[in-house]
Amino acid sequence: MKKKLNVGLIGYGFMGRTHSNAYCKVNHFFDLPYEPSLQVVCGLEEDKAKAFAEQWGYQSYTTDWRKVVEDDRIDLVDICVQNNVHAEIAMAAAEAGKAILCEKPLALNGDQAREMVAAIEKAGVANLVSFNYRRVPAVTLAKQLIDEGRLGRIFHYRANFLQDWTISTQVPQGGMATWRLDVKAAGSGVVGDLLAHCIDTAMWHNGPISSVSALTETFVKERMHTETGKIEPVGIDDACTFMCRFENGSLGNFESTRYARGHKALYTFEINGEHASIGWDLHDLHRLSYFDHRDESIVRGWRSVHITDSDMPYMDKWWVPGLQIGYEHTFVHQIADFLEGLAEGKPASPTFRDGLATQLVCDAVLKSGREETWQEVARS
Amino acid sequence: MKKKLNVGLIGYGFMGRTHSNAYCKVNHFFDLPYEPSLQVVCGLEEDKAKAFAEQWGYQSYTTDWRKVVEDDRIDLVDICVQNNVHAEIAMAAAEAGKAILCEKPLALNGDQAREMVAAIEKAGVANLVSFNYRRVPAVTLAKQLIDEGRLGRIFHYRANFLQDWTISTQVPQGGMATWRLDVKAAGSGVVGDLLAHCIDTAMWHNGPISSVSALTETFVKERMHTETGKIEPVGIDDACTFMCRFENGSLGNFESTRYARGHKALYTFEINGEHASIGWDLHDLHRLSYFDHRDESIVRGWRSVHITDSDMPYMDKWWVPGLQIGYEHTFVHQIADFLEGLAEGKPASPTFRDGLATQLVCDAVLKSGREETWQEVARS
Amino acid sequence: MKKKLNVGLIGYGFMGRTHSNAYCKVNHFFDLPYEPSLQVVCGLEEDKAKAFAEQWGYQSYTTDWRKVVEDDRIDLVDICVQNNVHAEIAMAAAEAGKAILCEKPLALNGDQAREMVAAIEKAGVANLVSFNYRRVPAVTLAKQLIDEGRLGRIFHYRANFLQDWTISTQVPQGGMATWRLDVKAAGSGVVGDLLAHCIDTAMWHNGPISSVSALTETFVKERMHTETGKIEPVGIDDACTFMCRFENGSLGNFESTRYARGHKALYTFEINGEHASIGWDLHDLHRLSYFDHRDESIVRGWRSVHITDSDMPYMDKWWVPGLQIGYEHTFVHQIADFLEGLAEGKPASPTFRDGLATQLVCDAVLKSGREETWQEVARS
Amino acid sequence: MKKKLNVGLIGYGFMGRTHSNAYCKVNHFFDLPYEPSLQVVCGLEEDKAKAFAEQWGYQSYTTDWRKVVEDDRIDLVDICVQNNVHAEIAMAAAEAGKAILCEKPLALNGDQAREMVAAIEKAGVANLVSFNYRRVPAVTLAKQLIDEGRLGRIFHYRANFLQDWTISTQVPQGGMATWRLDVKAAGSGVVGDLLAHCIDTAMWHNGPISSVSALTETFVKERMHTETGKIEPVGIDDACTFMCRFENGSLGNFESTRYARGHKALYTFEINGEHASIGWDLHDLHRLSYFDHRDESIVRGWRSVHITDSDMPYMDKWWVPGLQIGYEHTFVHQIADFLEGLAEGKPASPTFRDGLATQLVCDAVLKSGREETWQEVARS
Repeated sequence: MKKKLNVGLIGYGFMGRTHSNAYCKVNHFFDLPYEPSLQVVCGLEEDKAKAFAEQWGYQSYTTDWRKVVEDDRIDLVDICVQNNVHAEIAMAAAEAGKAILCEKPLALNGDQAREMVAAIEKAGVANLVSFNYRRVPAVTLAKQLIDEGRLGRIFHYRANFLQDWTISTQVPQGGMATWRLDVKAAGSGVVGDLLAHCIDTAMWHNGPISSVSALTETFVKERMHTETGKIEPVGIDDACTFMCRFENGSLGNFESTRYARGHKALYTFEINGEHASIGWDLHDLHRLSYFDHRDESIVRGWRSVHITDSDMPYMDKWWVPGLQIGYEHTFVHQIADFLEGLAEGKPASPTFRDGLATQLVCDAVLKSGREETWQEVARS
Repeated sequence: MKKKLNVGLIGYGFMGRTHSNAYCKVNHFFDLPYEPSLQVVCGLEEDKAKAFAEQWGYQSYTTDWRKVVEDDRIDLVDICVQNNVHAEIAMAAAEAGKAILCEKPLALNGDQAREMVAAIEKAGVANLVSFNYRRVPAVTLAKQLIDEGRLGRIFHYRANFLQDWTISTQVPQGGMATWRLDVKAAGSGVVGDLLAHCIDTAMWHNGPISSVSALTETFVKERMHTETGKIEPVGIDDACTFMCRFENGSLGNFESTRYARGHKALYTFEINGEHASIGWDLHDLHRLSYFDHRDESIVRGWRSVHITDSDMPYMDKWWVPGLQIGYEHTFVHQIADFLEGLAEGKPASPTFRDGLATQLVCDAVLKSGREETWQEVARS
Repeated sequence: MKKKLNVGLIGYGFMGRTHSNAYCKVNHFFDLPYEPSLQVVCGLEEDKAKAFAEQWGYQSYTTDWRKVVEDDRIDLVDICVQNNVHAEIAMAAAEAGKAILCEKPLALNGDQAREMVAAIEKAGVANLVSFNYRRVPAVTLAKQLIDEGRLGRIFHYRANFLQDWTISTQVPQGGMATWRLDVKAAGSGVVGDLLAHCIDTAMWHNGPISSVSALTETFVKERMHTETGKIEPVGIDDACTFMCRFENGSLGNFESTRYARGHKALYTFEINGEHASIGWDLHDLHRLSYFDHRDESIVRGWRSVHITDSDMPYMDKWWVPGLQIGYEHTFVHQIADFLEGLAEGKPASPTFRDGLATQLVCDAVLKSGREETWQEVARS
Repeated sequence: MKKKLNVGLIGYGFMGRTHSNAYCKVNHFFDLPYEPSLQVVCGLEEDKAKAFAEQWGYQSYTTDWRKVVEDDRIDLVDICVQNNVHAEIAMAAAEAGKAILCEKPLALNGDQAREMVAAIEKAGVANLVSFNYRRVPAVTLAKQLIDEGRLGRIFHYRANFLQDWTISTQVPQGGMATWRLDVKAAGSGVVGDLLAHCIDTAMWHNGPISSVSALTETFVKERMHTETGKIEPVGIDDACTFMCRFENGSLGNFESTRYARGHKALYTFEINGEHASIGWDLHDLHRLSYFDHRDESIVRGWRSVHITDSDMPYMDKWWVPGLQIGYEHTFVHQIADFLEGLAEGKPASPTFRDGLATQLVCDAVLKSGREETWQEVARS
């Protein structure tokens, strides 16, 4: 018999939807010890919170996140709000003894993330940061192939996250749809929003990053702010490239921008090892590229592996070979792993501590971009 | 306020799962007049029916499909069983005044399909055949582009559905997992299972097929039957190629096989028109290929359109640009359209009558394969 | 010391250029017993023949092909003229004891081809039909992989040759640039021009074709004839699809058209075997697709083999890994093989006898298209 | 009537072959005022020089480059030797009043390049550096599209040149085949050999680079030296990533390595502009990727332009649509442009002065890599 796990969701935006969908679907496909029960959704505007609750089947709604955190029935607090509110909510939830699932990036900066880690570790609550791309089956498979040693010594790790949605100077900053352009709400631009994903995956695949050198740029210097209605300076980074050294001696090359015309969410990575290489691309997330030099030379080439067979990570839960899953399934996998970890006492990663490590790389990248010098990454 | 629509599902196999998932999800993403309510699931083995009901939230379960059809509370009977039982259930459901959703192919042959159409039209019940691939957004977009006249006169329609799962002679026939290889259960092989999809889409895109010439083959002549435990002759077509003429003067080339090593479910089509061409591939279902000769020549080429923006068919309901959906979403779109049609009194296609038209092409193809002559396609 | 081989070229059109280029280049890259020496070029218009001779370094020029055939200094007669003149020239050249290289298709039909074979075999002269695509390194490699048994039993052979250059009704028939649309000059349309290539490669790869069923169409029924200046009926096939059985039990599906908008010269083939499959595409001729089911399942996928390493067929003669060759190199390989065969007394294929076999399949295809019945292929 | 242009080639290695092939072919395809005449080839080993002369049709051979430079009959000195000898030969040839074609990189460093520029400008001789990739038709087309303003403001320029041939520690340094690993002969590693190409193209496309920050690495620290037979330290850079700012405000990201398993010569670039983006890849050099945001949204996507039609740069000289050219043709285009420039008095680029500009970026990159600081690029 499954145990109920009462969920309180804070934030009814895009991420609120992806998480709610995952809670609704997970038990249809995974055999888990817990069954999420949607109790309450919290958001700033009451009518929207109400509509969201109806659409997704939450029992109630509120506009005050403290009510969620203080509600004794709630087992899990799920934080899907703007980056600048993560810390306060997470620390209150920790103190209230709730399990916590927090959207990425964990915090506005490393100092804040450190406080959060201290709080949740003191409270001893289960915790996870939602770097969901780890749980694209192809990305999980990449981890498995690396861990099996198939690549041998790693020489290069290359990742990009390219978008093009802010090229127009008419895109405003601030508000529900464009808070990611407002430095107060987001903390940073592409670094926290996009590169954080790349960094999380990269360190999971390839170990810690030790030092970085970054180039950051803000192409559009002023944008209308939706809250003030005035043209205001843009405080975020529109684009960032950084080079780095990993502790294992390999080199990294990372780039993110929202000015790469033609790319919507082109998160790609490639890992070059002594024997084999791996490539992946979010625009075709159900495929993995694999090259193995040990193949016989006349039939050696990059393989396009269609990740739909049941021996692929997570894929025994879904359909039949050839039939692809999509973006939303990463969140289902995430909650499935989280619930399994909860039952077994083995926390799923990335934990808040992992999220802190990523935050410290982001800090170093931003500082390097500002100062135009190499930066050591602080130890978490 | 949404009306409840009580669903009785017959068949808890692969298609039972895809349909159940669609019923559970559809109201989270679409704003519809009806809300499906999962009442009862029916299947041959009681323990499996029970487990399925628990996993998907059906109120009850049964092993007798007549109980579903006769249940006054049920509004919609959803038929997800082997092809040879479609007709009996559908006709009983029609007589009982139920709306009917039936998996494809509609029937074992054209004669049977004609009887079913007569029954449902006499009863005046809503009906749909689950040719789900019409509702891949890229496939729907192709229909839109053709209807807008962008391609001009059509010269060629080319479709393949290639698999490789029956190459081993050790794959048996009959039973839950391999009934598709048993001619009694399936009626035919790749023609009814796979080419029926291609034919349905092709006639939707390009109008009626008037005559066909086919080549069919059974590569593995005998297989163990799971019910008898004995080696028995294989009665289905393992592979089928057919050429055809469409009524609009264009030529068709269709092929399906389960012996195309390396292809899992490679349903592809390409349409060549006077001005433009379109291509699509189920292995990357979120992309459409488009070529337009009217483009300026120095930048003219096949475009790979990533079908994830909100102006694409159905895509305003899902995520954000760049984030792909998958196979299961076709069933969500199907039920959404069906429910909208139900409310508006405008039935969604493909109806049983459309399913009959496809069946008649299948009949002609099979007859042509047997007799090695061209066959006219009978009028529905 | 290399022997000189005096070449007389008949035809200064597109094929005349590809062959001349091959004669000029072959000794720069291959170490051969013979060195072609460009003696005479023959063409209908004197000024063009003269200009061609100057541009390519032919010693002389003429407008009378008999002078080439009768010239004692000439060792090799190379026939690059319209299809309807192949037979007469080739038989005269044979009688004169010349080695003969003839463009494809060998003849207008099987009867004519048979006469030619009889003539050259009686004369005992070296002979080759220029089905140049056999000598794309990727296509040669495919042959090697099949011959090594890597694919196991072959189930399917699929080939297309798609173009789009005759869609406009304004394209005329007849004359230097468009004789391929004039049935008198060409004998047939896409069958002899394009499918002949596919058939030659297919039988080389997969053995004889035993029976065929074809669909042919002429989309544009009348075109201006450049010789008469009048609108005249079009006698060629604009498009042809055919299905076939190979003697080894595998099935074939072939299609060619000049009405496939977006494709310039898209010759593709795919071969599906029990264990492995191969695919190729003339638009990226330097790549071979290969899938091997025996690969470990989690890294199994289609490999894109970049055919540029020195262990690939012919590639030790060219550049370094990663640097591709193109279309023209197929003709260099052809003449290299021909010259080697000449020295060793082992004729390179495809010989005229091979060309006859292809012609007989073309005949059966055209007859099947006219009569809408299956046709057995005559034995060569 | 064409004028003869007597060529003296210095260096019979890989580049000697590509240049010789270009001289032999160029007048077969281009209508030029000059006809190259192969007079003399010079190389270190007499028997190899002799064999090369025979194979390519040079009138004579020598082992002393001064004899070439001092030979009155020679019009053009073509320098295809190791980087460390470029300067001496080029300056002597300039003094002797010869036209000069020099392989890239122009020199070992900027100072040396400056001397060479001074020498040739003083002598007033025609000069060209062989950055041949500018003359891949797709790369030339990219330049044209940018110059027409189609991309609008440029935000990003991204280029990689990835190889994998030195991963094995058994690859030696020094000697004919591996002098590129010997810092004395090559001056640098991937920076001069590979990034120099990327930099040349990038500045041609996108204007001057103003500042750089680089990361360089030597993965294999010691290799056997073919001249001494001893294990010696490796002085070159095995890998280099650099970020940069262009003068037009756009950002650059460049990477090159010989440790990217699976890539043979993967030179790629992508340019992101306000309205449109362009991508290219040496492994499929006959294609250009193009994305234009001004396309109608439902058919907007990356276009794969197959650069084979006659309205594409240089392509009216070759074959017919769909039939690709390869690597070697870039050298034919280069010599064609050089000869045309010679006749018209309009020197083709890249001149030695352009080569100096690239050298200065290389210098800044290498210095930045050593010192781990940003570097301004010196003005040429």
